[in-house]
Amino acid sequence: MEEKNIVFHSIGVIHSPFRDPAGMPIQPSAAEGVEGTVVLDPMLREGLKDLEGFSHLILLYHFHQAAEPDLLVKPFLDQKKRGVFATRAPRRPNGIGLSVVRLLEIRHNKLHITNLDILDGTPLLDIKPYVPYFDKPEAVHVGWLEKHKGKIRGKQSDERFS
Amino acid sequence: MEEKNIVFHSIGVIHSPFRDPAGMPIQPSAAEGVEGTVVLDPMLREGLKDLEGFSHLILLYHFHQAAEPDLLVKPFLDQKKRGVFATRAPRRPNGIGLSVVRLLEIRHNKLHITNLDILDGTPLLDIKPYVPYFDKPEAVHVGWLEKHKGKIRGKQSDERFS
Repeated sequence: MEEKNIVFHSIGVIHSPFRDPAGMPIQPSAAEGVEGTVVLDPMLREGLKDLEGFSHLILLYHFHQAAEPDLLVKPFLDQKKRGVFATRAPRRPNGIGLSVVRLLEIRHNKLHITNLDILDGTPLLDIKPYVPYFDKPEAVHVGWLEKHKGKIRGKQSDERFS
Repeated sequence: MEEKNIVFHSIGVIHSPFRDPAGMPIQPSAAEGVEGTVVLDPMLREGLKDLEGFSHLILLYHFHQAAEPDLLVKPFLDQKKRGVFATRAPRRPNGIGLSVVRLLEIRHNKLHITNLDILDGTPLLDIKPYVPYFDKPEAVHVGWLEKHKGKIRGKQSDERFS
């Protein structure tokens, strides 16, 4: 398959209390109450119009501190190696992270958000409104994660992906 | 804010019945039963291990046919211009699309999927497992979309973003 580069650029920076990839909550649902800020490029501020009515946002960002991609990874929740596309691990062929966070307030080009599981200084790629009718399927099965469901809340990351 | 390029590459191609950006369902929830195929770069096939246990996937892809970005867009569901980050329109500063689709079957490097709202030939950026505990927040409000909720299912795209 041909190598085809797709070039994006950082449109802002995500600020959080997490300065180190180890010791972080592994997902927003485990990061309840952790607050942070998205600072959007001021040139793009007009694009935030109408966003304040949404309670939740999908943030896409660059896993800028992730190590080289790996096709098999040992996720934080498991002892077995899993296919990287069956995990949310940062060491992906394209290091794009996705988190659903709660929006508290927008001031100028700054979004105050909570339930944040993102490393401080992370480059922002996109903000999308979370819409249950689009994003919430029914009758979901979660494969290898089924038996780990109860463990996510208290689980923290370690240094394995950085 | 400094311009900082982030380079990704296509890891596969999404095939669907939609050859034209106009006349498509505007979201997976409006594309129930529309089947298609994700053909992953065969070199990355090992990364699909364990994915077959998941009923739903998050596909990230490149809006490769979208026109130049715009900060204010008129969404398919509305007559008013909205901030682009408060919409799912393709003409975004970084043209990254996101769809939650249902996984039917994996054969070698091909994923047979359904509820597909994606243009044929779209470059794939990432596959993530959909996990309700990560991706399904509670008590959601959807701003300007509240009054349009009932209209999504039958709504089709037109040429406005291509």
